[in-house]
Amino acid sequence: MANVNDNFLRLQKSYLFIDIANKVKAFKNSHQEAKIISLGIGDVTQPLAPAVIDAMHKAVDEMSRKETFRGYGPEHGYNFLQKAILENDFRARNIDLELDDIFISDGAKSDTGNIGDILNLKNSICVTDPIYPVYIDSNVMSGRAGELRDGSWSNITYMPCTEENNFTPQIPDHPVDIIYLCYPNNPTGTVITRAELEKWVDYALRNHAIIMYDAAYEAYIQDPLIPHSIYEIEGAKRCAIEFHSFSKTAGFTGTRCGYTIVPQELMAHAANGEEISLNQLWNRRQSTKYNGTSYISQRAAEAIYTEEGKKQIRETIQYYMTNAALMRNTLEKVGLKVYGGINAPYIWCRTPQDFGSWEFFDQMLENVHVVCTPGVGFGPSGEGFVRLTAFGSREDSLEALKRISTWL
Amino acid sequence: MANVNDNFLRLQKSYLFIDIANKVKAFKNSHQEAKIISLGIGDVTQPLAPAVIDAMHKAVDEMSRKETFRGYGPEHGYNFLQKAILENDFRARNIDLELDDIFISDGAKSDTGNIGDILNLKNSICVTDPIYPVYIDSNVMSGRAGELRDGSWSNITYMPCTEENNFTPQIPDHPVDIIYLCYPNNPTGTVITRAELEKWVDYALRNHAIIMYDAAYEAYIQDPLIPHSIYEIEGAKRCAIEFHSFSKTAGFTGTRCGYTIVPQELMAHAANGEEISLNQLWNRRQSTKYNGTSYISQRAAEAIYTEEGKKQIRETIQYYMTNAALMRNTLEKVGLKVYGGINAPYIWCRTPQDFGSWEFFDQMLENVHVVCTPGVGFGPSGEGFVRLTAFGSREDSLEALKRISTWL
Repeated sequence: MANVNDNFLRLQKSYLFIDIANKVKAFKNSHQEAKIISLGIGDVTQPLAPAVIDAMHKAVDEMSRKETFRGYGPEHGYNFLQKAILENDFRARNIDLELDDIFISDGAKSDTGNIGDILNLKNSICVTDPIYPVYIDSNVMSGRAGELRDGSWSNITYMPCTEENNFTPQIPDHPVDIIYLCYPNNPTGTVITRAELEKWVDYALRNHAIIMYDAAYEAYIQDPLIPHSIYEIEGAKRCAIEFHSFSKTAGFTGTRCGYTIVPQELMAHAANGEEISLNQLWNRRQSTKYNGTSYISQRAAEAIYTEEGKKQIRETIQYYMTNAALMRNTLEKVGLKVYGGINAPYIWCRTPQDFGSWEFFDQMLENVHVVCTPGVGFGPSGEGFVRLTAFGSREDSLEALKRISTWL
Repeated sequence: MANVNDNFLRLQKSYLFIDIANKVKAFKNSHQEAKIISLGIGDVTQPLAPAVIDAMHKAVDEMSRKETFRGYGPEHGYNFLQKAILENDFRARNIDLELDDIFISDGAKSDTGNIGDILNLKNSICVTDPIYPVYIDSNVMSGRAGELRDGSWSNITYMPCTEENNFTPQIPDHPVDIIYLCYPNNPTGTVITRAELEKWVDYALRNHAIIMYDAAYEAYIQDPLIPHSIYEIEGAKRCAIEFHSFSKTAGFTGTRCGYTIVPQELMAHAANGEEISLNQLWNRRQSTKYNGTSYISQRAAEAIYTEEGKKQIRETIQYYMTNAALMRNTLEKVGLKVYGGINAPYIWCRTPQDFGSWEFFDQMLENVHVVCTPGVGFGPSGEGFVRLTAFGSREDSLEALKRISTWL
């Protein structure tokens, strides 16, 4: 008799953004005249860069002719894209990686979700609180999270990021095996300094821990002193896997392309004590359970790295960061305490009058028809906060801010 | 200290098609003048249909304008594609499914590899021998396959498909939990009759087993009596998940789109005996660890179902099936025993003179510079066979056959 994976039954019934979508849908049904503006889910709104569009048309044409048609691609992704990534995202920052360290994928969500496949189910986990839910949920599904006790998973160490500690997670006082870090941070929009990141690399090397470093928002960093990649830190190639996404960098949420770095120096232990290359295991996982990223999406990603493409995506990023600055400004003016939004497209906003996160979400939807994301959906330390995204159009962002100013 | 998933270390060192690629590469290096023809890996060679190309150009243009830009798509895939699938692949065959039963994905390899996530690791497995290696390898990785003893996994029941039983697997004489069936079959190119498929559905319903039905090659069926979908059999919605791919149907090996049917009627048991909907679990898995298929690829797939698109992909399928007929004909003429190639793009060819599979592979590469796939790579019952694919160009296929005729 076929049985389910009972770990799935431990998950909360549904996924944060689906809960929000359902609430918004219900509100729409009962308020059909309302013009709802979403600053909730982190989806982009601006079209793809012209250089990307040109590259995709060209790739589509190649698929139409026998001589230039492309079938299955190479396991790691196409060399042309690996090379562009290596040159621009790493060598330009004096980071020395090799082509075989780079695995092209359909996005960071798949890779952060699937990476656990290659690691032992008994490994302990360490996460920041608040956190992007996929890191925890994917570990709950595999059974690695342990038992749920008073809202916390027994095999997970939580590192609160609060106003009190300036959203800087403290290094655990005990050994953990797998550490999830996301910088610039989703949801708080805060960043990590080089000095703080060095502490994490040092901790991981000492404890033979693996850092899962989600750099999906690195393109939003404005401050030249903030690291874009964990590999800017000496020794990180021996303790870190890094996830990149073109979703926010270049508006690829519907185009689907990203990449993951698993350095060939990175080892973990087998039960018999042998050191095993995680690069080889991930290669095996991907070549068995994945069949590559669309050729057209890989050519699209390559175009981001041309001179023209770079200029165009920088303009879109600045467009969103202007939204962020306008949002910070207005929200502070009406007396709200805001964080993030300087090196990240997210604003982490303290709710007024001790409103709970969901309570403020409901009030904002009800009163000004603006959708935010309740902070508590990202973890207990998110209670009393909401996340706002700068990914809206300028008009929508300004209109939402106008409504919020009038309301509060 | 981070530990690896030791199950990965039980896998054979590398993946069949990588072994072949390495052998071919080595041969090329030592025989630089040789014009090698591959009838090995199942990759297509003909360009995408004009209707698909037009749809992709249109979708790319939509991505270039703010008004028509698409970000994250719906969790299950776009409604327009679900509807086209429902109408053409199911309702047209009098199969009653619902839109929510259909999950659009980036291909059948990901889905057949990942489907195990939602099922219990203690469930037993049943596979045909020979078999597409991903079914077994993905179960080895998760630990579900058990221990390797004398070349067989302890938790897997193997059903030999041989000349003696006309490549018809026998129903197990004991209960199993998960059954993998692929029809038209990869690698043997044989098909399953309605009567045989009814036996499997009946067995699965009686034993509360789940059939993983891989229908990736259904578009190649020529005989009107052969079922295209397991849901043509009464009761299958309560015991089967079906995987579809556009890779072979429409040459999408580099474009990446497929779909999986998890009927809402399909249940499996939790540890406490409760019946759980696998549709809900798969939805949760996909919405947590996947972020949708490229919008452009989904529009490409939709175009396959237009009148124009249907006609164009039918022509390409006939092109490949003409290759298959030519191959069967020539190989039989030189005295080889061949199977498949009538309702499937694969030919399963008995090696002459009691050659082993790899031995014949080496001989064929050495003597006539033609690459095949050694049957034993698909399982012990594949020993003494090689798989040839009809996916080459006509010129290459004819040239390969000419060389083989002269040689044997």
